[in-house]
Amino acid sequence: MKIASIIIIGNEILSGRTQDINSNYLAKKLSSIGVFLKEIRVIPDEKSKIIEVVRTETKKADFVFTSGGIGPTHDDITADSIAEAFNLKIDLRQDAINELAKNYPNGLKDLNSARLRMARVPEGSELIKNRVSGAPGFRVNNVYVMAGVPIIFKSMVESILGNIKHSDPFVSTSIKIFKAESYISEKLRKISLKYEDIQIGSYPFKENEKIGVEILVRHTDKEYVQKVITEIETNLNEP
Amino acid sequence: MKIASIIIIGNEILSGRTQDINSNYLAKKLSSIGVFLKEIRVIPDEKSKIIEVVRTETKKADFVFTSGGIGPTHDDITADSIAEAFNLKIDLRQDAINELAKNYPNGLKDLNSARLRMARVPEGSELIKNRVSGAPGFRVNNVYVMAGVPIIFKSMVESILGNIKHSDPFVSTSIKIFKAESYISEKLRKISLKYEDIQIGSYPFKENEKIGVEILVRHTDKEYVQKVITEIETNLNEP
Repeated sequence: MKIASIIIIGNEILSGRTQDINSNYLAKKLSSIGVFLKEIRVIPDEKSKIIEVVRTETKKADFVFTSGGIGPTHDDITADSIAEAFNLKIDLRQDAINELAKNYPNGLKDLNSARLRMARVPEGSELIKNRVSGAPGFRVNNVYVMAGVPIIFKSMVESILGNIKHSDPFVSTSIKIFKAESYISEKLRKISLKYEDIQIGSYPFKENEKIGVEILVRHTDKEYVQKVITEIETNLNEP
Repeated sequence: MKIASIIIIGNEILSGRTQDINSNYLAKKLSSIGVFLKEIRVIPDEKSKIIEVVRTETKKADFVFTSGGIGPTHDDITADSIAEAFNLKIDLRQDAINELAKNYPNGLKDLNSARLRMARVPEGSELIKNRVSGAPGFRVNNVYVMAGVPIIFKSMVESILGNIKHSDPFVSTSIKIFKAESYISEKLRKISLKYEDIQIGSYPFKENEKIGVEILVRHTDKEYVQKVITEIETNLNEP
């Protein structure tokens, strides 16, 4: 089972100005290809913090995905921080400049110094395609560095997903039991102790004034999921 | 300046099933009372992970807020994990039982063993009021343990905010500059180097087919914010 973590970089998330939607988008994609997302960390645009968290996560996870801080302004410090985290040089690179230039009417001529900042990547990086606005992301070691603007983030995720080596995808099946959570929880606990290697979640809901619990079972083995779901359904619907 | 961190506990966020909205809600509230949110961590329903992260964050922040895992089912392990993180005993407590009982038509008589689990709190905890469904959260040391269901989380946040000791609230002011981000970024970088103790963020947007950048300035000193905003506006609007 491959393990992933996501690092969302941006003061605007921590101040509450912006609701992060990138991690939920990527979380769904990772689930669908059987990569286990172990943690999401939202951190500020601070070099020392980015370095510390990247150094921690790169060791703990098979894949690390970052979002934010690779634009042209003074608060875009992610690329430099990633380079420093791995003790790599960072500089302009011709293939990144070419990708960037495609986005402007006069190509290379339109690249002022601020725009050129977006073509600086740590040495040895592999570029990540940005179909929306040219400026590429990059991969260095197991860290995939992507933009924070959701439409660009999505475009970058689409372009890397095929390269993520993964195991079998997860299968999630859920059933609704129209009883109170506190009524069924003892039975559910017993079943979960019997099947410790499978994820069983329970989520209370209210539908047309009737309360109930959605039970979600998640594993890479589809038949195993079905077996456990059936056992839960039979047990919990008994009076 | 007081520092906070948020720990969101729940497999359903990491699998992508559920979009976390609690951290954005609390982030806004903390901004409004001048508490600086330093990090948000989303972690799975795993005892060892909860213990590790709570022990780390309790030392680094003045206030730690958790969301999720305090319901009646087998995957609700937050209260036990918090107790273990601080080497405290955990047991049923009469005041928590009374709060819980208020929520049921027959009061105490309706409290089966699963429901009673929600009245177990680490020794020495202070209860956090839940006006929605009775089952209380709790505070132990600087860690505020709250429910994951957004309507209950909000109710709990409302009831603790008055007790959070804070400094002056942040003032955020923003202006829109209808120029490309890469065009204004050099000027903005110079201003940000001049005022290193103030947060200046730049966020590109598109409005009625016109592109621009929203510049956001954030500090506890309102006059200082205004001075910097004026300087940015004058500088960036020069041709």
